[in-house]
Amino acid sequence: MKRNRVIGVDLGGTTTKFGLYNDQAKLLHQWAIPTDTTSNGSHILKNMCDSIKQTLKENELTVDSLLGVGIGAPGVVDNENGTVCNAFNLGWSDKQDVKTTFNEQGLTIPLYLTNDANCAAYGEGNISNDESVVFITLGTGVGGGVIIDNKILQGNVNSAGEIGHMRSYLNYGFTCTCGNDNCLESVASATGIVNVAKKESEDFNESSQLNKMIKENKDITAKTVFDLAKQDDKLANKVVDLITYDIGVSCGNIANLLNPKSIIIGGGVSHAGTMLLDKIVSVFNTVAFPLVKTSTKIKLATLGNDAGITGAAYMVIKGETKHDETI
Amino acid sequence: MKRNRVIGVDLGGTTTKFGLYNDQAKLLHQWAIPTDTTSNGSHILKNMCDSIKQTLKENELTVDSLLGVGIGAPGVVDNENGTVCNAFNLGWSDKQDVKTTFNEQGLTIPLYLTNDANCAAYGEGNISNDESVVFITLGTGVGGGVIIDNKILQGNVNSAGEIGHMRSYLNYGFTCTCGNDNCLESVASATGIVNVAKKESEDFNESSQLNKMIKENKDITAKTVFDLAKQDDKLANKVVDLITYDIGVSCGNIANLLNPKSIIIGGGVSHAGTMLLDKIVSVFNTVAFPLVKTSTKIKLATLGNDAGITGAAYMVIKGETKHDETI
Repeated sequence: MKRNRVIGVDLGGTTTKFGLYNDQAKLLHQWAIPTDTTSNGSHILKNMCDSIKQTLKENELTVDSLLGVGIGAPGVVDNENGTVCNAFNLGWSDKQDVKTTFNEQGLTIPLYLTNDANCAAYGEGNISNDESVVFITLGTGVGGGVIIDNKILQGNVNSAGEIGHMRSYLNYGFTCTCGNDNCLESVASATGIVNVAKKESEDFNESSQLNKMIKENKDITAKTVFDLAKQDDKLANKVVDLITYDIGVSCGNIANLLNPKSIIIGGGVSHAGTMLLDKIVSVFNTVAFPLVKTSTKIKLATLGNDAGITGAAYMVIKGETKHDETI
Repeated sequence: MKRNRVIGVDLGGTTTKFGLYNDQAKLLHQWAIPTDTTSNGSHILKNMCDSIKQTLKENELTVDSLLGVGIGAPGVVDNENGTVCNAFNLGWSDKQDVKTTFNEQGLTIPLYLTNDANCAAYGEGNISNDESVVFITLGTGVGGGVIIDNKILQGNVNSAGEIGHMRSYLNYGFTCTCGNDNCLESVASATGIVNVAKKESEDFNESSQLNKMIKENKDITAKTVFDLAKQDDKLANKVVDLITYDIGVSCGNIANLLNPKSIIIGGGVSHAGTMLLDKIVSVFNTVAFPLVKTSTKIKLATLGNDAGITGAAYMVIKGETKHDETI
């Protein structure tokens, strides 16, 4: 039987997303299941395998029709051994042997594993047709992935792409989840943006709806800040200027170091759209070296929530990060 | 005849350095000629070819014994076409066709060209046996090179490694030669360190030999600053703390992005030695992500002035950045 089907999996703390693709990366079918993090996440991998087998059956496909399964997972992914550790949001305190579980569940097919941010980066890079890409995801945290010559950069201990932990130029002194102070994530993540707004509100005396909301202890989100900035709210504008300055400088630094074809901004915060992009680009232009400024393009992600499954599928199709060739 | 000899060339604005190597990268003979930048540098390439031919003759070798010639050159090096442009310190205002000149001069051998900072990075990386390395050279300017999986990262338009133009965290507002403000180079180069010392001297009232020298308009260099810091001079210590902070944070940012095996600090300023290194590492440790901190090592360059010729030779031996296979 011709192996011409591919499954891409995006393993998240709430939902496990799946895509069935043909070997030209055309999405044929897409589905999701809840990620069961109970019992230290011990059901996650079996549920994943069951769901894959069920979908194969429903589509009258056998395991032998699969070129492979690609998986983007949180935590530290070991490319050599097909294992995942430090994925605390899945309830996985111990190292998980993904490859062995797949084999035990009858899925003895080539398996391609990488970190979720790398996986999304690989998806965005492939869809953009840019062989060298840095992807920055601005979500609950700030993550990223580096693609060079259409290969995911793993780093010495699979820790490349920790863009959220580059040092912020805003000196708020917020302590990051990683233990360091002043990480980019502590100001440019969705949570960070709210913290910056609250901090800036302390001494802000001009008329501002955002300021009023914060002073009245109303719930605000990063979206509130961007929505109000679009309405020319003064505090919201100040906050957006601060965080886009920080992101723009970081983009300039990254581009001066790597001169990639593009830096792609994704994640929930990127839904702020062209307003966010334009401000980032205008700061970027003050930092990027002349030749870099004209050759590294800053752009918004286009795949949204499908970046993970797309990247996972491309890993299989392009043979990236292969771990298991039992067949 | 067996092709088992390699020539590495480091083309600088004052001196052109050469090394004759065997195909195991053993240095057999080393020499240099002045770089003649008169007449828009029009003699440079011919002088280089003449010197290579003469050395071959003196060593009873023919052109056919050469596996190739590697050249590290300033400016923007076009890897596809074997040309160099923007090498203003050589007097080259126009694009130079290195490959054609070599052929015209009878040196129809494989030619390997890269930017001088990349070339030094490649030398240091190979000597360290680190397949992924970022090299930072702190000299008259601040340059760098990125080696990933033992390949020189060129970037989209051969502009990767512009580490000197990453944004400084010290906000002196010095305008850089590139036209941007607050580049790392504007504070961490030999010239930059002197400028920081002068700026810090303005409001410095404690007892300090460095302060006295500056106030008396005596000539100071980066070496003066480091020498006095080693004698516990207060202003010198302050300046060293400031610039090592800036370099240390940049190293942390680079390591969080790429997680290379090592970041190697070279260039004239690096002769300040372990004092410089220890201070950089201590700042790096506050910025690097936990897993990155333990897996990316910051170290001093070991090749000194030979980094360029060594990297150039390794390019030939490892077949990196090949441009001309006329044979």
